[in-house]
Amino acid sequence: MHFELIHSDEKTKARAGKFHTDHGVIETPIFMPVGTAGTVKGVHQHELNEDIQAQIILGNTYHLYLRPGLDVIEGAGGLHKFNGWSKPILTDSGGYQVYSLAGSRKIKEEGVRFQSHINGSYHFFTPEGVMDIQRTIGADIIMAFDECTPYPCDYNYAKKSMHMTHRWLQRCMTRFNETDPKYGYQQALFPIVQGSTYKDLRTESAETIASHNAVGNAIGGLSVGEPDEDLYGMTDLVCSILPKDKPRYLMGVGTPQNLLECIALGVDMFDCVMPTRNARHGLLFTSEGTINIKNEKWEKDYSPLDENGTSYVDTFYTKAYVRHLIKANELLGAQIASIHNLAFYLSLVKEARKQILNGTFATWKDQMIPKLGRRL
Amino acid sequence: MHFELIHSDEKTKARAGKFHTDHGVIETPIFMPVGTAGTVKGVHQHELNEDIQAQIILGNTYHLYLRPGLDVIEGAGGLHKFNGWSKPILTDSGGYQVYSLAGSRKIKEEGVRFQSHINGSYHFFTPEGVMDIQRTIGADIIMAFDECTPYPCDYNYAKKSMHMTHRWLQRCMTRFNETDPKYGYQQALFPIVQGSTYKDLRTESAETIASHNAVGNAIGGLSVGEPDEDLYGMTDLVCSILPKDKPRYLMGVGTPQNLLECIALGVDMFDCVMPTRNARHGLLFTSEGTINIKNEKWEKDYSPLDENGTSYVDTFYTKAYVRHLIKANELLGAQIASIHNLAFYLSLVKEARKQILNGTFATWKDQMIPKLGRRL
Ligand SMILES: [Zn+2]
Ligand SMILES: [Zn+2]
Repeated sequence: MHFELIHSDEKTKARAGKFHTDHGVIETPIFMPVGTAGTVKGVHQHELNEDIQAQIILGNTYHLYLRPGLDVIEGAGGLHKFNGWSKPILTDSGGYQVYSLAGSRKIKEEGVRFQSHINGSYHFFTPEGVMDIQRTIGADIIMAFDECTPYPCDYNYAKKSMHMTHRWLQRCMTRFNETDPKYGYQQALFPIVQGSTYKDLRTESAETIASHNAVGNAIGGLSVGEPDEDLYGMTDLVCSILPKDKPRYLMGVGTPQNLLECIALGVDMFDCVMPTRNARHGLLFTSEGTINIKNEKWEKDYSPLDENGTSYVDTFYTKAYVRHLIKANELLGAQIASIHNLAFYLSLVKEARKQILNGTFATWKDQMIPKLGRRL
Repeated sequence: MHFELIHSDEKTKARAGKFHTDHGVIETPIFMPVGTAGTVKGVHQHELNEDIQAQIILGNTYHLYLRPGLDVIEGAGGLHKFNGWSKPILTDSGGYQVYSLAGSRKIKEEGVRFQSHINGSYHFFTPEGVMDIQRTIGADIIMAFDECTPYPCDYNYAKKSMHMTHRWLQRCMTRFNETDPKYGYQQALFPIVQGSTYKDLRTESAETIASHNAVGNAIGGLSVGEPDEDLYGMTDLVCSILPKDKPRYLMGVGTPQNLLECIALGVDMFDCVMPTRNARHGLLFTSEGTINIKNEKWEKDYSPLDENGTSYVDTFYTKAYVRHLIKANELLGAQIASIHNLAFYLSLVKEARKQILNGTFATWKDQMIPKLGRRL
């Protein structure tokens, strides 16, 4: 598994690349739809493939470990076989979910004890255990077990936490290197930069992570409520330290504008629940701005959902119909809006890549940002 | 719009026919998926067309009148244009929903005053008004406004109600004949036989309905909790009176066994929420019996969802995966199960038609009934 840097933009720090995996090539920059429990909510696998043109999707270690459970996934021969998605998969380590979703939890040097949000049962995650779990789930890219600090975060807590994340990383890498993939294809472990919104901590963390010379590197602990200024400042700082010849994955980001700004700072991979979660609430991202389809103004708008959209739902269904479905809380409304938003995100990063390769990314981005920020 | 009786079975009263509409031909016997609010829950229109092979779907007058409202549907140019379904549509008159869903309601000779289940607002449905509403919705087949009596039903109430339904029918027909379709294609009005589970009332009602010489006729007030014996007895009796050269629509029926038994009694058209509602709870109908996918036994069953199924979901997804999705309350579980169940219902009536044309329906039905009743 390796990253091929194809082109670096001259006016920004944007890059176009190819990430080669045993389940196929990912063209970067890329957005990865979130399939928390082994399914991208409301979307069939063939729709992800054909209509959305996803190249890689996410799964979540915490969720999959609790349900359906590792024995079910292992019995299937790994997550790809279990859910029928044959392109690359990345699994989140579950660190973020343990902190945000689980009931009472206790963080110790050894690991984290937590209660299932489903049935209250107790579980213990350690860096080693999370590596073993991700070997069993069988994603192509697996993530180190880290602590994702909240925003705002006290400096001393952020520093202490970051050092523990670094020690945990060492344990993750040791276990990862001692074990083999279970299903005959390669897996890569991405370490995660932490350090909250503190420049010195982010610098130290990025240097530590860079020193491991991993196949790819991730930036965590952002998009947790901080101002965009901090998101961009920390991303820029960290990207300047992480190796140029490895892909950079900015976790949990973000809006269409966030994607373009962070691509300009040198990020190659993104994931976010926003396109699917907002879809279920009737918020549609388009190249001309955001539509809240519940608004009265769309009630009798029989024009296509998005005349510039790349998916068939954009021209087959009308705004008035999708508004009705969302207002009536019909499943089909969530389905259509999810396909639309994901297809838009994928078309946006695809266009960004094209513009990078053309040398026109900076100009294009400056035209797009004000449009993307509009409320239609 | 007319019905063409192609073949009558010699050993049973089953029939194969073609119902010609301006939106295409419906091959009978047929099952009609229920799209209450202008959408078959969890199913895209192209999936209805290609994967389920639906030939006609239902809409519901009560639901569509309340939401999105008639002005929105009329602005689109009718329900077909609004939801993008270009094959035939039938609308339920809303009688059943007014009685079962609405808040406080008051039935008078003039019509029914009721409260919306959505926001408590007051509305008044009359036979004339319901004709006008259905002209505006623009279904190919529209239904008379009737009172659907509950089960069990006091004889005197059933008799009084039936007579009112007959008087309402006359008002429906008068209004229907005074008005024109709004969108340039023909509409047919089907009257509805009532009479609860009383033979003399059913006989009287069937004779009254038959005397109107409508394009097609419906049997209402069944599948409301009565024993199968009554369902079949009343259906048999009514079918023996309704004209042979017109399609017979048994409303709200039923299980796969109900369909085959009632086809054998001379029914041509069915609708029921069961395949979609049960799908959302993980109950899957197959040619070998019913699967409750939530059961432990399917947890590690990695075989195709239904190896005899006709839809791509049957072979693409596994039982273990769909069980996980349903248990985790994931939208995709409802989507897959809905496509499966509807495709099964449509394949069942298609096979029934083939067997009728082959002269082998009776034998085939006798083989199928015990299998369909099994719990797998
Ligand atoms: Zn996010
Ligand atoms: Zn039913």
